Amino acid sequence: MNRVEIVEVSPRDGLQNEEKVLTTEEKLELIERAARTGVRRIEVTSFVRPDRVPQLADAAEVAKALAGNGIGYSALVLNQRGYQRALDAGIREMTTLVLASDTFSRRNQGMSTREALDAVREIRQRGRADGVSVAVTIGASFGCPFEGEVPVERFTSVARAVADLDADEVCLADTIGVAVPSDIETRFGILRQCSPEVPMRVHLHDTRNTGVANAVAAVRSGVRALDASLGGIGGCPFAPGASGNVATEDLVYTLHRMGFDTGLRLDETIEHAKWVTGRLGVGLSGRLGRVGGFPG
Amino acid sequence: MNRVEIVEVSPRDGLQNEEKVLTTEEKLELIERAARTGVRRIEVTSFVRPDRVPQLADAAEVAKALAGNGIGYSALVLNQRGYQRALDAGIREMTTLVLASDTFSRRNQGMSTREALDAVREIRQRGRADGVSVAVTIGASFGCPFEGEVPVERFTSVARAVADLDADEVCLADTIGVAVPSDIETRFGILRQCSPEVPMRVHLHDTRNTGVANAVAAVRSGVRALDASLGGIGGCPFAPGASGNVATEDLVYTLHRMGFDTGLRLDETIEHAKWVTGRLGVGLSGRLGRVGGFPG
Repeated sequence: MNRVEIVEVSPRDGLQNEEKVLTTEEKLELIERAARTGVRRIEVTSFVRPDRVPQLADAAEVAKALAGNGIGYSALVLNQRGYQRALDAGIREMTTLVLASDTFSRRNQGMSTREALDAVREIRQRGRADGVSVAVTIGASFGCPFEGEVPVERFTSVARAVADLDADEVCLADTIGVAVPSDIETRFGILRQCSPEVPMRVHLHDTRNTGVANAVAAVRSGVRALDASLGGIGGCPFAPGASGNVATEDLVYTLHRMGFDTGLRLDETIEHAKWVTGRLGVGLSGRLGRVGGFPG
Repeated sequence: MNRVEIVEVSPRDGLQNEEKVLTTEEKLELIERAARTGVRRIEVTSFVRPDRVPQLADAAEVAKALAGNGIGYSALVLNQRGYQRALDAGIREMTTLVLASDTFSRRNQGMSTREALDAVREIRQRGRADGVSVAVTIGASFGCPFEGEVPVERFTSVARAVADLDADEVCLADTIGVAVPSDIETRFGILRQCSPEVPMRVHLHDTRNTGVANAVAAVRSGVRALDASLGGIGGCPFAPGASGNVATEDLVYTLHRMGFDTGLRLDETIEHAKWVTGRLGVGLSGRLGRVGGFPG
C-alpha cells in the first residue's frame, strides 16, 4: 500500500526543454545513471518531428542501444508515424498525449483535442495487436498557456473521452506548472469517476513551487506513479527562467519521510542529479542536492 | 473560515540570515513595502545580543521609527533583558522561543529547554502586567541541527510544558527545513490536544522544497497564521546555500488558488520580493517572482 513508483522523465521532458543538446552517448549514460538510483521506469525519448524537438532527434539510436535490465523504457509518441518509429526501435511502452485545450493541441501537434483523441485510439488499437502498452497523458489538465484556465467541465469531457480509450494508464499533466493541491484532488477525483479501475499517474512541473505539495495531494488521491526529473531539469517553454519537472530527489526525500517506499536511494539520486545538471551547464532546480537529506 | 493570515518575517528571520546588512532606513522601507502587500502582521526585528546577530543591532531604532497604521508589529525576545528593550522601544507583541532540543537551545541561547521555558514564563507574567501579547514558538519542532530527529515524545513533553504557559499563540517552527506534511499533521495534532483553544501558527523554511506542501498541511490542520518571507530570503545557518523561509509570494499564489483569502495582493508581493532581493544582492528563492501568477 505504501509503494509509490517514480517514473524518471529527465531523458525526455527534461532534455527536451534544455538549450544544450546532449550527445547520444551522454543520453545513454543519463539513462544508465537513472537506473542506478533504483528507478524501474524511465521515459527515454520521444518519437516526434526532429525539426520540432531537435534535442531528441536521435530517438531511434537511443532506444536501440538500451540495455535490457528489467527497466521499463517508455517513449512519447503523438501519431501513427511516431508509433511505428518507436516500435521499430524496440519500444514496448508508449505514452501518448491529448491536450485538454484545443488551442494548445493545435499549436503543439497540429490537431484539435478531438483529433488527438482519434490518433490515440488508432495507436491504442495497434498497441493491442502488437503487445505494446499505451498510456494516455492529458496535458494541460490544470491550465493552458494560451487559453488560461481549463474549466472543470472541459477537463471532465476530455477525461470521459479518454476513458473510452481503455488505456493501460492515464496521466494528468500540469504542463505549465499552475496546479495547486485542491486542483489535483478535484481532477483526479473526476478521473477516478470516469475510469474507476485505471492506474493513475501524475506529471508535475515545479514552476510555481507547488510540485511537492501537488505530489503529496496526488498520492493521497490514489495516484501511485509520479513523473520526475533528476535535478528538476527541463524548464518550461512558456515561462523563460522557470523551473522544470519536479525534481526526483525532492520527491524521494518527501515521500520517504512520509513513509512511502519508492525504491530509489536518495544519495545516488542526488549524485546523478548533480551529474546531469553539470553536463547541461545549469543549476540544480531541486533543493535536496544543495543541502542533502535529514538526518545527515 | 477561509481566512488565513500571513505574518511577514523577512525583516527579522530573513535579514538575520543574510550576509549583507541593510541600513536602518532600508529596513524601514522593507517594513513599509511589506505593509503595501496587504499583510497585517510583520515581525520587525529581534531584541537579542548584537554580537550574536549583528544584522539586527539597530532593533530599537527600527521599532521606535515604526508608523502606527493598523499593522501588528511583533519582535522576537529571548529573555527579560530583551523584553525590556522591546517594551522600551514600543513593541506590544512579543514572540518568544523555546527550542525543542537541549543541545540546540544551549547553543542558541545559552540555556536548556527547561530554562528557556522558565524564561518565557517570566516574560508571560510581565506581558500580562504590561498588556503585551506573548506568543511562544517551539523551535526545531521537526528536527534539530545537532541532535537530528526530535522524537514525538520529546516534542509532546515540550508542547505540554508550553501549554502551561497559556500563551496568546503557539507557533511550531521547522527551523532547519526538514518537515514533511505528515510531520506537520502529527505535531499540530499533538499541539491541539495539549492546547485545545490556542491560536496556532507555523514557521516554515523551504530548505528541502517542502515549504508549500507543509503550509497546505498546516492550514488543513487548523493553523490560521503562517510566517513567510518576501522573496524567500534568509537561508539557513546550518545549511550553506540553502533556501530561506518559505516565500510570501509562493504562499499567496497557492493559498489564493486553493480558495483561501490572505488579504495580500500577489503582484505587489512579487514587486517587493524583487526589491528586497535586489537590495540584498541575492536571487529570488521563491518561484512566483520568476514567472508570475496564473492566468497572466
